[in-house]
Amino acid sequence: MAHRPAPLLALFSDFGSAGPYVGQVMAAWAAAAPEIPRVALFSESPAFDVEAGAHLLFAFTRTLPQGSVIEAVVDPGVGGPRGVVAVSADGLWFVAPDNGLLAVVVQRARTCAAWRVAWRPEAEIPQTFHGRDLFAPIAAALARGGEPPAPCAAVDLPALLRDVSDPAFRVVLVDPYGNLMTGIRASDVPPETRVAVGGEILGAAPRFEACAAGEAFWYANANGLLEIAVNRGSAAARFGAKVGTPVRLVRS
Amino acid sequence: MAHRPAPLLALFSDFGSAGPYVGQVMAAWAAAAPEIPRVALFSESPAFDVEAGAHLLFAFTRTLPQGSVIEAVVDPGVGGPRGVVAVSADGLWFVAPDNGLLAVVVQRARTCAAWRVAWRPEAEIPQTFHGRDLFAPIAAALARGGEPPAPCAAVDLPALLRDVSDPAFRVVLVDPYGNLMTGIRASDVPPETRVAVGGEILGAAPRFEACAAGEAFWYANANGLLEIAVNRGSAAARFGAKVGTPVRLVRS
Amino acid sequence: MAHRPAPLLALFSDFGSAGPYVGQVMAAWAAAAPEIPRVALFSESPAFDVEAGAHLLFAFTRTLPQGSVIEAVVDPGVGGPRGVVAVSADGLWFVAPDNGLLAVVVQRARTCAAWRVAWRPEAEIPQTFHGRDLFAPIAAALARGGEPPAPCAAVDLPALLRDVSDPAFRVVLVDPYGNLMTGIRASDVPPETRVAVGGEILGAAPRFEACAAGEAFWYANANGLLEIAVNRGSAAARFGAKVGTPVRLVRS
Repeated sequence: MAHRPAPLLALFSDFGSAGPYVGQVMAAWAAAAPEIPRVALFSESPAFDVEAGAHLLFAFTRTLPQGSVIEAVVDPGVGGPRGVVAVSADGLWFVAPDNGLLAVVVQRARTCAAWRVAWRPEAEIPQTFHGRDLFAPIAAALARGGEPPAPCAAVDLPALLRDVSDPAFRVVLVDPYGNLMTGIRASDVPPETRVAVGGEILGAAPRFEACAAGEAFWYANANGLLEIAVNRGSAAARFGAKVGTPVRLVRS
Repeated sequence: MAHRPAPLLALFSDFGSAGPYVGQVMAAWAAAAPEIPRVALFSESPAFDVEAGAHLLFAFTRTLPQGSVIEAVVDPGVGGPRGVVAVSADGLWFVAPDNGLLAVVVQRARTCAAWRVAWRPEAEIPQTFHGRDLFAPIAAALARGGEPPAPCAAVDLPALLRDVSDPAFRVVLVDPYGNLMTGIRASDVPPETRVAVGGEILGAAPRFEACAAGEAFWYANANGLLEIAVNRGSAAARFGAKVGTPVRLVRS
Repeated sequence: MAHRPAPLLALFSDFGSAGPYVGQVMAAWAAAAPEIPRVALFSESPAFDVEAGAHLLFAFTRTLPQGSVIEAVVDPGVGGPRGVVAVSADGLWFVAPDNGLLAVVVQRARTCAAWRVAWRPEAEIPQTFHGRDLFAPIAAALARGGEPPAPCAAVDLPALLRDVSDPAFRVVLVDPYGNLMTGIRASDVPPETRVAVGGEILGAAPRFEACAAGEAFWYANANGLLEIAVNRGSAAARFGAKVGTPVRLVRS
């Protein structure tokens, strides 16, 4: 089963899978770079929540093949003065608004370089959908050519970090099963640690099957985040939790 | 970054992104025309609402590459006597039920021709999923061969218009952010026009960043429609609006 | 329009189209087998409901081209002792947890063979996302090589059937229009049969157009299941029905 994985064009956004925006970015990529596999990696990052997006973006891109290009869009400031950045981090490319969305990627990269991209399309573009009209062609150019389109200029990494907390001691996503993903890297947390959420204190379990149905626990999820779950149930319902609910580590 | 864009197979429908129908059309295309990029362009057109679909279909296909084939399905009359039409409009192909869904595309095209497609698959097909069993193979044939499968016959354009109002002074889509898309082309509306919705009267703003958080305004969206939004908030919640809510232009 | 259909990689799951899981499986396939068309066939199988999934899986794969590989994941026991099975049934391959999810496929196949797959990736994998880390590479290997990766061993078909009822006299899916799919094959039901649901008794109609708007009826849906619908309305709302609601056949 040996095979050199193909690099991808991947979209990470808060566009919502029900809306028209993901389809239009996919169409733009299919038109501009039909030979490159494209994936709507994730479309339900919490709307306007740059910090939650920064943690999920890092987590959800850990298993993408080297050379992949990820367009990341959580962009409440679209059309304003914020710039556009392209970051090469540990063999992956990221294109995003310069608003902190790449903060966790940059902070946790072993090797990293960043450019501010001043390239703009020749035709005038609307100021409300840079995901399709600005980030998508930059991402396609990166995937085809391997470098950001000119003009662009190197930028210092600390400038990209903004006000994003890492770790973020809160829920950053409720998944469709009602599991609670947090902005905490599980590998930073010893397994004997207990976790406080919604008035309860939970221990760790290595896997769902180790718990009785209805039992709550935390575990290292498959994307490296500390996640709170109820076996065959909804942790969101059990704890009345949503994006933003505080999560605390209780060290023995 | 010069590159001749690749034509696509694109699906526009009211199938719902959560249902099984989009996946089955994508599978039919992947089997019939694997070499042609395919995109689920939009799956949440308001159910059974042909007029809303007609406006959204025109708007959402403006940026597709020349030669693309769009299958459009909002088809409450599936299995009944309504026919199947293929329309070539300004370099794009559309395949749809003959129920008015192509009215705005036809009305606004600079160059346009239409055919009634009498071709049917050899095997008997179910009468409830023409999106997969009838429109999809016609669209794939168009994408591969460039003309509608025979037998088909030219049809007069006015016959396709039906009872679709253009413009439609109402909400035609609530997007995942709560923004309200209307059936009004923004390019027909002078920027000093004010817009009445839900008991309030709003002015235009060129972009989200020009407004304070929580401020309501209208603007030309990235698909050319007049859209009502609240910066970093939900216009649907603010105005209690949904698909069908009336929208009025207030000319000074 | 003659053309030998291309085999596909298709994902059937209860992952939820809004969650991050479908995108990660698609990315894994795009990296491992970029030349093979891939489709998110269906992502909203009722969570943890293996029996509903077993019926929907059989129904939704009837029109896939020969040679296609379907990864099926409804897997409440992920990380536990349940095994992994690969089944060749009537020219399609299925990869799934050994929990009964393939029961209807196996029971209704004309020709069928099954293997227990003991192959595991070289690197250690998380115990919570076998859909991406275990089933996906097995499916990709099947699509590229035509046989399950070694080590694997033939398994008796009856062992795969588990506690899945076929037919299942209940609602197995509510679609986005509010139609009710049941675990009953329509071809097993004479057209004069009446169907009891939510306190009402319904007759059959051959198609939506044969009924008045608002009328309830049952019909053979395009995937071969007995389905209950209200013309231009929601059967789920009309009957207060959801997944699990009993459905009874009333033979005259």
